[in-house]
Amino acid sequence: MANITKKVSWSSRGDDSGLTGEGTPLLNGSEIPKPSRQDPIRGRPKEIPHNEKLLSLKYESLDYDNIENQLFLEEERRMSPMGFRCLEISRWVICGLIGILTGLIACFIDIMVEKLAGYKYQVIKENIEKFTEVGGLSISLILWAVLNCAFVLVGGIMVAFFEPIAAGSGIPQIKCYLNGVKIPRVVRLKTLVVKVIGVICSVAGGLAVGKEGPMIHSGGVVAAGVSQGRSTSLKRDFKMFEYFRRDTEKRDFVSAGAAAGVSAAFGAPVGGVLFSLEEGASFWNQMLTWRIFFASMISTFTLNFFLSIYHGKPGDLSNPGLINFGRFESDSVAYYYYEIPLFMCMGALGGLLGALFNSLNYWLTIFRIRYVHRPCLQVMEALLVAAVTAAVSFTMIYFSNDCQPLGPERNEEYSLQLFCADGEYNSMATAFFNTPERSVRSLFHYQPGSYNPMTLGLFTLTYFFLACWTYGLAVSAGVFIPSLLIGAAWGRLCGILLASFTPTSPIWADPGKYALIGAAAQLGGIVRMTLSLTVIMVEATGNVTYGLPIMLVLMIAKIVGDYFQEGLYDIHIKLQSVPFLHWEAPATSHWLTAREVMSSPVTCFNRIEKVGTIVDVLSNTSTNHNGFPVVVQVLDSDEPAKLCGLILRSQLIVLLKHKVFVELARSRLSQRKLQLKDFRDAYPRFPPIQSIHVSQDERECMMDLTEFMNPTPYTVPQDTSLPRVFKLFRALGLRHLVVADDVNRVIGLVTRKDLARYHLGKHGLEELQLAQT
Amino acid sequence: MANITKKVSWSSRGDDSGLTGEGTPLLNGSEIPKPSRQDPIRGRPKEIPHNEKLLSLKYESLDYDNIENQLFLEEERRMSPMGFRCLEISRWVICGLIGILTGLIACFIDIMVEKLAGYKYQVIKENIEKFTEVGGLSISLILWAVLNCAFVLVGGIMVAFFEPIAAGSGIPQIKCYLNGVKIPRVVRLKTLVVKVIGVICSVAGGLAVGKEGPMIHSGGVVAAGVSQGRSTSLKRDFKMFEYFRRDTEKRDFVSAGAAAGVSAAFGAPVGGVLFSLEEGASFWNQMLTWRIFFASMISTFTLNFFLSIYHGKPGDLSNPGLINFGRFESDSVAYYYYEIPLFMCMGALGGLLGALFNSLNYWLTIFRIRYVHRPCLQVMEALLVAAVTAAVSFTMIYFSNDCQPLGPERNEEYSLQLFCADGEYNSMATAFFNTPERSVRSLFHYQPGSYNPMTLGLFTLTYFFLACWTYGLAVSAGVFIPSLLIGAAWGRLCGILLASFTPTSPIWADPGKYALIGAAAQLGGIVRMTLSLTVIMVEATGNVTYGLPIMLVLMIAKIVGDYFQEGLYDIHIKLQSVPFLHWEAPATSHWLTAREVMSSPVTCFNRIEKVGTIVDVLSNTSTNHNGFPVVVQVLDSDEPAKLCGLILRSQLIVLLKHKVFVELARSRLSQRKLQLKDFRDAYPRFPPIQSIHVSQDERECMMDLTEFMNPTPYTVPQDTSLPRVFKLFRALGLRHLVVADDVNRVIGLVTRKDLARYHLGKHGLEELQLAQT
Repeated sequence: MANITKKVSWSSRGDDSGLTGEGTPLLNGSEIPKPSRQDPIRGRPKEIPHNEKLLSLKYESLDYDNIENQLFLEEERRMSPMGFRCLEISRWVICGLIGILTGLIACFIDIMVEKLAGYKYQVIKENIEKFTEVGGLSISLILWAVLNCAFVLVGGIMVAFFEPIAAGSGIPQIKCYLNGVKIPRVVRLKTLVVKVIGVICSVAGGLAVGKEGPMIHSGGVVAAGVSQGRSTSLKRDFKMFEYFRRDTEKRDFVSAGAAAGVSAAFGAPVGGVLFSLEEGASFWNQMLTWRIFFASMISTFTLNFFLSIYHGKPGDLSNPGLINFGRFESDSVAYYYYEIPLFMCMGALGGLLGALFNSLNYWLTIFRIRYVHRPCLQVMEALLVAAVTAAVSFTMIYFSNDCQPLGPERNEEYSLQLFCADGEYNSMATAFFNTPERSVRSLFHYQPGSYNPMTLGLFTLTYFFLACWTYGLAVSAGVFIPSLLIGAAWGRLCGILLASFTPTSPIWADPGKYALIGAAAQLGGIVRMTLSLTVIMVEATGNVTYGLPIMLVLMIAKIVGDYFQEGLYDIHIKLQSVPFLHWEAPATSHWLTAREVMSSPVTCFNRIEKVGTIVDVLSNTSTNHNGFPVVVQVLDSDEPAKLCGLILRSQLIVLLKHKVFVELARSRLSQRKLQLKDFRDAYPRFPPIQSIHVSQDERECMMDLTEFMNPTPYTVPQDTSLPRVFKLFRALGLRHLVVADDVNRVIGLVTRKDLARYHLGKHGLEELQLAQT
Repeated sequence: MANITKKVSWSSRGDDSGLTGEGTPLLNGSEIPKPSRQDPIRGRPKEIPHNEKLLSLKYESLDYDNIENQLFLEEERRMSPMGFRCLEISRWVICGLIGILTGLIACFIDIMVEKLAGYKYQVIKENIEKFTEVGGLSISLILWAVLNCAFVLVGGIMVAFFEPIAAGSGIPQIKCYLNGVKIPRVVRLKTLVVKVIGVICSVAGGLAVGKEGPMIHSGGVVAAGVSQGRSTSLKRDFKMFEYFRRDTEKRDFVSAGAAAGVSAAFGAPVGGVLFSLEEGASFWNQMLTWRIFFASMISTFTLNFFLSIYHGKPGDLSNPGLINFGRFESDSVAYYYYEIPLFMCMGALGGLLGALFNSLNYWLTIFRIRYVHRPCLQVMEALLVAAVTAAVSFTMIYFSNDCQPLGPERNEEYSLQLFCADGEYNSMATAFFNTPERSVRSLFHYQPGSYNPMTLGLFTLTYFFLACWTYGLAVSAGVFIPSLLIGAAWGRLCGILLASFTPTSPIWADPGKYALIGAAAQLGGIVRMTLSLTVIMVEATGNVTYGLPIMLVLMIAKIVGDYFQEGLYDIHIKLQSVPFLHWEAPATSHWLTAREVMSSPVTCFNRIEKVGTIVDVLSNTSTNHNGFPVVVQVLDSDEPAKLCGLILRSQLIVLLKHKVFVELARSRLSQRKLQLKDFRDAYPRFPPIQSIHVSQDERECMMDLTEFMNPTPYTVPQDTSLPRVFKLFRALGLRHLVVADDVNRVIGLVTRKDLARYHLGKHGLEELQLAQT
């Protein structure tokens, strides 16, 4: 019934697992992945796998399960109730700081973009106006292209050469981080700096991008930095918040940072909280959520406060986000219930267009992975896109003859008259010759008749391809605003067409409303977020009444889109071969049990283990394990060794570094006892084993792991079904799960990668390859 | 450092645990609880304990952990991917139905209350107007009191005699249910009917109550009914949704129902989702949340749709909830940032007043538990409150001389002229002579000067005590609206006073705004909800701008209030001695390990067990256990018996009922194999063991539990710290957790009650008594 691929005994090894490395390392160094062994029964031709058929072993996992070893318990027991209260207060202080800093960054980006883009458009506008009369507009085009390229060049070089992880919106990376995957360098200060400068350059450079997505990443970086009370990049340790120097706490703060980012970007504090929860916190905790909400609120308040001062209206707290959809004033009736089927059709269209967008971007990304991986090539591609964007925009404006009267209520900052009569402006130019945020707002709110259908159609078409080409470039940029813009354009088009069919009652097909629905549909079709996106849209709209249609539209867009292609972020996560755990185990995975899923045999350590053995195991590059069950052998008995704990590579490294050997402890009685502080100081960049020198004499020493290992690791019997194991993993944020038999012997180890390997494909349960890439 | 009460070996037994009942049943039948043994070191006088120092054993827990036995796994494995998709679709359909029905119920309540209250106020108004001129207003008073009492009598009798669980708002009960405690009869159809009629009667009866809180309970009942596809009260089985007949699935739907209830009550779909998540779903699941949101949206839409038809404005979807705070139109500046400290002071005041309210209500509830427990007494108290409410209201209106001009924009439906001049109305009457919802709106939105400070002060004072007296009566009623009303009154008073200090710039102290902040502060001080309440308030206000002050105010109110007294719902949960699990283990509980927490020794069954033994254990009323570890003894060996599974009382009952004995299976080969359907049909009202007849011959038979037990129960070693055990419980929704030693022998069992027993008191960790009451 359930068509599952036959389970083959598995000999590759994840970096998280503790397999014994016997025989030659099968996959070590083999860059080329083996063809996937899916569905051998059907005998379909084995196609050359793309990257998404692989799971990379290079990504380590985060330890979200507290290591409750003796040191930790002693510390907790020493702490008074007042101590716990102080900790709680510092958590709140940190969240407040995260909110303030994220808001300030958003403020900085906004002001810089406005300044630079304003300057650019002013120069070009003057130039165009000059040449419209005298002819020779091609000079204007060149000027436009050169200015765009200049900005993009700066941004592209920053990203491609200094910090490639800062490319894109950063949302997939933050998703992975919150999911429990350690993406290298994702929460570093350098990444933040490159990201901020990069996003300013790419928006000012006129690319089809938004500045909102990167805020989420920026918030995450701020949170990771503030909560640790030190910066490894700046080599400053403020000796604060040392308690929070572990993955569990840091993750909580990064959730708060991401939420603060969303909140600043869209003025949507609740949407931010829901985003963080949707993506991250599998274990919902009331206090944590409340803190996340606090950070979000502070962030949007800070942004609003400083922007209101900047705009000369201090105290006006009505612009809570970077993007603001403006007020949809529903004087009487927001929408009629018979419009709902129309909205749902638009949702389906959004899903289709979103799937098309994602598919195109998918192929483009594969192409980029194969051929455009050198930094200079990446910068050149970015420059090409910038020039093409300018050229296309210019051409569209040039050949457009959609002239609209320049009404008194329009305060167009960069309205182009071009070939229009005096007192009129070029309508195509409001869409192209503008920052995307302003274009979205104009599509939502301009009166019926401000755009003609031809303009909107052409704009949708060109912007669709431009945005699709742009996403994935080596520039910092978000896809939210371009998606909204495409959707708003065709949504408004729908509204105009509908109104033209029923000219007698034109009120009900208000094009602005349809633009909003179209924007939601397109964005939902591309990113496939659900609850949080609904709330973000509603908060950005500032009108709860549109909640139901937006929700329905997003739902339909997701269902239709998912039929063809995954969401854009998921595609990029998959193409990176990240071992990402979804919310639930695949539905048809009850066939599998821990026995089949686990890696086995497992490298275990004895409770008192020889230093040489530990060093050898840790140095074995072919296995590169991270978690090791600790076993105890009853002396003078042939009973099997029993599980008594679990120890991590990072802990062993610290122990080796501090030479916590039994013999030394005996000889030097006064030796300082290793404390939790030593582990915290080393966190998160534990040195590699190669950097730790262990002499031949020391190799013969013994190490007592009792105090440092986690004495109560979670275990499951080998008959536990995959969904049950999965639930345990997700609910507790595990990294390693020991599989034990009925006398408590270790028989296997389940890691994140063992679970992420299974997914529901078109032909039932499929299994991904593990690869060292 | 951490002052923890000394752990005494514990011999009472929870109904969830599998203790062997050796010796005399210590607490069985002993109604009077032993004095609590807290803090013997300090030698404080042992005061007579109140109920909240006890944990009742009468509440069973829900099984939120899937019983993944062979039957279940076989069924799952038989199911095709299409089958899973159908299940998913039915889940959506059910959530849609829940939304529609909840919306309809809200609609019904709203229309009925409006009709009845309208009729009542009309009659009284005419009467008062008649007697104002001629004198003899005491007849009006009597008429008012009699009408109130008549309504309350009906509601009180329904609740006190037919379904006492329908009393109050039902929010504590739903909180407990979502937390995993089985409150008897809480989700039955009869409860719903009594609740709906009761709430109509108590609001129409003029009590200081709201109709919003009970919607949450109603939504939960609807969800529990619809999702099971049958009604045991009506004895109808629609043979639908049989897959969902287990606690896990039912709980998910009840979350959706509660959210739909919040959504219908306050027009706050997002707030509803957050309420459900805050209270219930410890394991956050994206699809579930999305479904909950769907139910919420549908519910508010249904309510809005039908109300718009009822009000003759079909298609006007701008009144999404039962209560609507009205639009706070912030033309320019919603609030100035220097007002924030003022708001925070108001938050602190709200916390203080809330704590006072809760303390008074706490003593009142203790009094009621002791002396007012007979139904007729309860009805009489309700009548007394109804009469006093009428009398107080009348007196206040009578002696008030706050006359306000009847402006053209005021469409007072029940404005009383009384002794005011023509064209004026009595301002106190708008507050008292009105449904509370309307009073709240008038306090929020009437122009400055509509109320004088004296009126507001008196109103606050009287309504405070009335509301406090009313909550806990044997009527269905919510505390949300009275709290909002009290807060709005003193908030508006604050606004007026502030404005009078700064007469030059009266704009910034808009009394309506301060009324809103006061309402939030008072409500937060009483119920102490955090995130969800913020979102509910923001959604009901329809203005995101007030998000930050509302959040700050709620936070301060909670902090200040928590210093003195718990939240109202928590008090009532505690007074019921419900074993409620909070979000986290007490901070200073790292001292405790599973060894100290667990119940031991444990009644275990063998995998193939004699029927007589099972019947005897199940019949033992002194233990009344619900979960039994299943062990296997290796034949011909003196090795200890090893854990191999876990079986529940309910399963054993079904097995006994169907006589699934090894011997019978052999003799009657054609016997139908027991299926999951048999368990589902018996769910949730499994017959008591006494109703199952087992003959003497059958007692000698054997039962094979292999197929039915959960073969992979979660286990922990005995050294696991309490926080770790707690986290496992919360994250996975466990009911039983087996404590095993290093060779997998059962040495103890941890149940919800063992964990709920510990809480952080004023003097460190305290331990509650277990009692059979």
